[in-house]
Amino acid sequence: MTAAPEPTPLPLNLHEYEAAARAALAPATFDYVAGGAEDEVTLRENRDAFDRWRLLPRVLAGTPAPSLTTTLLGREVALPVLIAPTGFHRLCCDDGERATARAARATGTIYTMSTAASLAIEAAAAEAADWWFQLYVYRDRAVTRELVARAEAAGATGLVVTVDVPALGRREADDRNRFAIPPGLTGANVPSPSPERPPADASDSGLAAFVAGSAWEPALTWDDLDWLASLTPLPLIPKGILHPADAALAFDHGARAVIVSNHGGRQLDGAVAALDALPAVAAAVAERGEVYLDGGVRRGTDVLKALALGARAVFVGRPILWGLAVAGEAGARRVLDLLRAELARDLLLCGRASPAAVDRALVVPAHQPLAP
Amino acid sequence: MTAAPEPTPLPLNLHEYEAAARAALAPATFDYVAGGAEDEVTLRENRDAFDRWRLLPRVLAGTPAPSLTTTLLGREVALPVLIAPTGFHRLCCDDGERATARAARATGTIYTMSTAASLAIEAAAAEAADWWFQLYVYRDRAVTRELVARAEAAGATGLVVTVDVPALGRREADDRNRFAIPPGLTGANVPSPSPERPPADASDSGLAAFVAGSAWEPALTWDDLDWLASLTPLPLIPKGILHPADAALAFDHGARAVIVSNHGGRQLDGAVAALDALPAVAAAVAERGEVYLDGGVRRGTDVLKALALGARAVFVGRPILWGLAVAGEAGARRVLDLLRAELARDLLLCGRASPAAVDRALVVPAHQPLAP
Amino acid sequence: MTAAPEPTPLPLNLHEYEAAARAALAPATFDYVAGGAEDEVTLRENRDAFDRWRLLPRVLAGTPAPSLTTTLLGREVALPVLIAPTGFHRLCCDDGERATARAARATGTIYTMSTAASLAIEAAAAEAADWWFQLYVYRDRAVTRELVARAEAAGATGLVVTVDVPALGRREADDRNRFAIPPGLTGANVPSPSPERPPADASDSGLAAFVAGSAWEPALTWDDLDWLASLTPLPLIPKGILHPADAALAFDHGARAVIVSNHGGRQLDGAVAALDALPAVAAAVAERGEVYLDGGVRRGTDVLKALALGARAVFVGRPILWGLAVAGEAGARRVLDLLRAELARDLLLCGRASPAAVDRALVVPAHQPLAP
Amino acid sequence: MTAAPEPTPLPLNLHEYEAAARAALAPATFDYVAGGAEDEVTLRENRDAFDRWRLLPRVLAGTPAPSLTTTLLGREVALPVLIAPTGFHRLCCDDGERATARAARATGTIYTMSTAASLAIEAAAAEAADWWFQLYVYRDRAVTRELVARAEAAGATGLVVTVDVPALGRREADDRNRFAIPPGLTGANVPSPSPERPPADASDSGLAAFVAGSAWEPALTWDDLDWLASLTPLPLIPKGILHPADAALAFDHGARAVIVSNHGGRQLDGAVAALDALPAVAAAVAERGEVYLDGGVRRGTDVLKALALGARAVFVGRPILWGLAVAGEAGARRVLDLLRAELARDLLLCGRASPAAVDRALVVPAHQPLAP
Repeated sequence: MTAAPEPTPLPLNLHEYEAAARAALAPATFDYVAGGAEDEVTLRENRDAFDRWRLLPRVLAGTPAPSLTTTLLGREVALPVLIAPTGFHRLCCDDGERATARAARATGTIYTMSTAASLAIEAAAAEAADWWFQLYVYRDRAVTRELVARAEAAGATGLVVTVDVPALGRREADDRNRFAIPPGLTGANVPSPSPERPPADASDSGLAAFVAGSAWEPALTWDDLDWLASLTPLPLIPKGILHPADAALAFDHGARAVIVSNHGGRQLDGAVAALDALPAVAAAVAERGEVYLDGGVRRGTDVLKALALGARAVFVGRPILWGLAVAGEAGARRVLDLLRAELARDLLLCGRASPAAVDRALVVPAHQPLAP
Repeated sequence: MTAAPEPTPLPLNLHEYEAAARAALAPATFDYVAGGAEDEVTLRENRDAFDRWRLLPRVLAGTPAPSLTTTLLGREVALPVLIAPTGFHRLCCDDGERATARAARATGTIYTMSTAASLAIEAAAAEAADWWFQLYVYRDRAVTRELVARAEAAGATGLVVTVDVPALGRREADDRNRFAIPPGLTGANVPSPSPERPPADASDSGLAAFVAGSAWEPALTWDDLDWLASLTPLPLIPKGILHPADAALAFDHGARAVIVSNHGGRQLDGAVAALDALPAVAAAVAERGEVYLDGGVRRGTDVLKALALGARAVFVGRPILWGLAVAGEAGARRVLDLLRAELARDLLLCGRASPAAVDRALVVPAHQPLAP
Repeated sequence: MTAAPEPTPLPLNLHEYEAAARAALAPATFDYVAGGAEDEVTLRENRDAFDRWRLLPRVLAGTPAPSLTTTLLGREVALPVLIAPTGFHRLCCDDGERATARAARATGTIYTMSTAASLAIEAAAAEAADWWFQLYVYRDRAVTRELVARAEAAGATGLVVTVDVPALGRREADDRNRFAIPPGLTGANVPSPSPERPPADASDSGLAAFVAGSAWEPALTWDDLDWLASLTPLPLIPKGILHPADAALAFDHGARAVIVSNHGGRQLDGAVAALDALPAVAAAVAERGEVYLDGGVRRGTDVLKALALGARAVFVGRPILWGLAVAGEAGARRVLDLLRAELARDLLLCGRASPAAVDRALVVPAHQPLAP
Repeated sequence: MTAAPEPTPLPLNLHEYEAAARAALAPATFDYVAGGAEDEVTLRENRDAFDRWRLLPRVLAGTPAPSLTTTLLGREVALPVLIAPTGFHRLCCDDGERATARAARATGTIYTMSTAASLAIEAAAAEAADWWFQLYVYRDRAVTRELVARAEAAGATGLVVTVDVPALGRREADDRNRFAIPPGLTGANVPSPSPERPPADASDSGLAAFVAGSAWEPALTWDDLDWLASLTPLPLIPKGILHPADAALAFDHGARAVIVSNHGGRQLDGAVAALDALPAVAAAVAERGEVYLDGGVRRGTDVLKALALGARAVFVGRPILWGLAVAGEAGARRVLDLLRAELARDLLLCGRASPAAVDRALVVPAHQPLAP
């Protein structure tokens, strides 16, 4: 599909981008992007978890117009909001990952390219400024090594290793829709599985067939992380950690940062919300490296809450796809612009001059009187 | 009724089996199976209690493809999910308990046959592999002794003794529907009461009349349990225990295992949810025998939560009947297949290789941040 | 109105009696009976408070068929459920308080006659067995003295003194409906105010005008309670106490029992639910006299929860009026019959042989796992 | 618009005034007044916070008809309910702030005039009895000084300094409606910005343009408060404080009272509810000056809860505008009359003779049994 010009009036916030994307996409495609595993408990919890916190602003501190700039692993980004890895951007607009990369570049943030990109690593990378590569580890370690080498060669500055897909979570909407990634969108980077083939089993989606048929390693170990660290100088950033002990292990095995995530509620339904896991993870490893949050961020105040609870930055996934679906690169850019504008205003309204000034004292438990 | 072939597309989960069964059954029959006592508070709580817990998975443990096999009282089952005793399976499909027994056999799990089976013990047992007999104790102890002897002779390997029916809970939908078990479906195993007669009182269902007219013992005692233990070498498994002290007493009086259950919300409305009672019961008696959970299990993640909270296995009741109603034996089998597939995937996603590897650390309280 | 014969099929529970009464009564009359003050927060809370508790039954105790008999202030009643004082029963059926008195007599429980009865004290008392008189204290103490004397002469065995009406709560539905007690239903016992006159102010209901114009004492004191005790040998039972300290004061000033009540949510909106106040009141005064609960009881299990939390008996108000509206005396009787049948079954299902056997251990907090 | 005569029947409470105002106002105007920032989380929380508390009344204390009179900063008001500063009253009725001032005078309470009044300070002040001036501090301190001087000259007795608008909160309904303050309603007191110009940016409301274009100081400091204190003998009352430490700082810098407020949920969405912040603020500074509550008050019982939790008085904002919209001055007066009547009745029902008699013991946490 070709991205239409942006709708008039423009969506006012990320919720409206989702609504506009629902109108723009084929229903099964929307479901694929929007959906979660099984009963979508975790999908909802990822959002609800933000509502467990309220902000306690300070006033009269003479806060100047905030700067949103921060550093991640020593490199500067214009705001502490990154693009999460998601697959098959050409489902949402013709330019696919190229559009995403350009939007990130225009915004001054990091684009995380998925192994499941619908364009070749090199093609998308050509449009990117700072970008990270998200890796699914293949059983065939030669394939894995090759992916890492290509990403490194194409200029990636970080390697995000997904650790929460020993099997694909069951997204029943996809089964119901018999959703299959359209021919031509898969295999951009790894030739082996033929994901375009029709699903073998009526009760399974094409996507599940793709993964089942694929060569992703279902039994990853911490040794594999060590091995990856030995392959590349890129900083390793495991994604999909919820348990504080796993976060500690990650740093034991060479990680430079961890991404607290439940895969957007698409893997284990009933898993703890990402934001609910964040404070314990941050408490366990804050001295050892950076902690990022992925899951449910839709507002500038969500970003603030995550920062207050220990994240150095957050990722947004689906909202970028809504932006792509609504208006291609311009849509993705405007999604990031909206978050940036909200975050700047929210920092000011909280009496904070920068992301670094956001501390634990900014948030208090919701639905109860302030503790005296 | 004759079980229809399975619908196309196949139901994707147990919730969809319930919806399909609602369409397949006469409304009053559906209500009889689905309903609970009075305001159905406990019926709902049995489900809601699972939502009080979230899963905290581990990653990168190199978990191999899980084995679901476990042992119950020393005997192996293919998965820690058993068929709960429910009455009158011929309400749902012509083959009735024979179909259920075959589904259990095909799945490698235990079928628990109800005293209120709509087929003779021996007829259903002929189709079963491993099976337990559920006993309602009759005032006439000769009748009781005869039932136990027949079950033992027919090959039962366990005796589940229902302890929560000193009177029948009031299921008002049955009263409203003037529901009566159809002629021919009752009395398969005990001749005395004539449950097929029309209800004597317009405000009472035929079922209540059946029980009121029946000779079930309303004032069972721990001595009765001792007496049953003296009757048979079969392991005694009281069903319907919620209080930890009762669980301890059960083991004092010869029980080999206890089933934490509130009779699927069909007896005392307002009784504590089965899952809510489980951890305290398990803490009280875990060293003395096995603890099972009955009530509200619909997902593989429900099974995991119950195991984490102290159950060695769980029972499913209504879902089996939905399977029977939708497609007879094949339907019941597929219900179990779905649970097996979910459980296998969920174990893997939790970083656990087997039911035995599921520990208390897998679950955390829902709706709140992880404790640091 | 003349009470119709009972509907077919008979209502199955008190909720259905309410629905049937809504159909039987003029909307403004239904609203007058059903409604609460302002936003009806407390009205709802009175019900919701029961849902904060779950029952933890015992099994295999050999519980015989329970007896519901108990004693109140030394006198036996057939069940621990009394008829609360409510006004103007002839709004609901022609026989009015006579029907109520007969229903109580048939059931073996106590009828509490309201000062605002729509029949003369003596006329209603003639149909009653054991009954208590509910007193609104008039500014004119001679009127008050006369009411007490008449009640005593007519055979009352207790004097319930309402203490929570220093002003009438604002029931906005009555204002909206411009509800007025119909001519002929008021003034049965006190001649002074003419409540039948049309409301003076368009924004006020006729009822508010009645009270505003009446001579009820708005500034009652503990001395007034002493004075009442000096007037009559009848046991004094203050009704409308929520604060534990007030319960203690009541016993200091001659009370024999207290009724924990917020006037069915009709007075101070936002007041604590009656059941929520009960345990603290019972803890404060249990050694000094009896404690009763009024507010929100609709099920046998509600009665059990109140008993477990310290009440010796409970009152039902509106449900009796629903019974009267649906079928006159027979309806009120059947409402009590339903509660009796539920209570008997519930006791048995809880493993308790009598109200006296209901202890604090029967209830546990809802919506959470059982404490180990 | 000209205020219509009051509707028949008169609205019974403030909720009905809101409904009547919705019918009377242009939709975009209603949205401007009613709306909050972004997802309106804080807007709702301001109301919900009152539902976290229940009232625990006392009885038989012989409470006389209550007096509502209290003092604020040493001056007597007829009731502890003040008119909050809100802008542009001529949006709601032709007489605008004049009508509001008269309503306050008739009621015997304080009118707080907004910097954003749609009439000149002097014109509105001419109709007021006791009134306070609400100040937005301008970057141009000469403009600021001039406003303070005019307010002082016109007879203001207090200076409310808004401290929570370093930037305007995003009220998306205004953006959606492209709402602009109509020509002629702005600039009554400060000439510089021309708020009537059409919005420059399609995605921004006229109001945001007004503020963006205005000269309000975005980086106020405690020194600015000191400076204001040096300008005028009027008592300084910072408005928009939520953090207890900021309340303490306010008194360090010359404040005589503080207003706990989140600007009616119109600034930082997700900010803690005003009532939730109140007890901690009151605990921190109660010895040092007066604390007021602004946000969500709609009932007499809300006033009582705020008083019990540490407020000496409360503000109502939107309800006054609903009154103006429905019936001009008479409507605003009746809104205050309703609150006065409710408060008088509620005090009596709580067994309290005056606002001063309301203590912390009057409120208990909702949704749970009373602590023993």
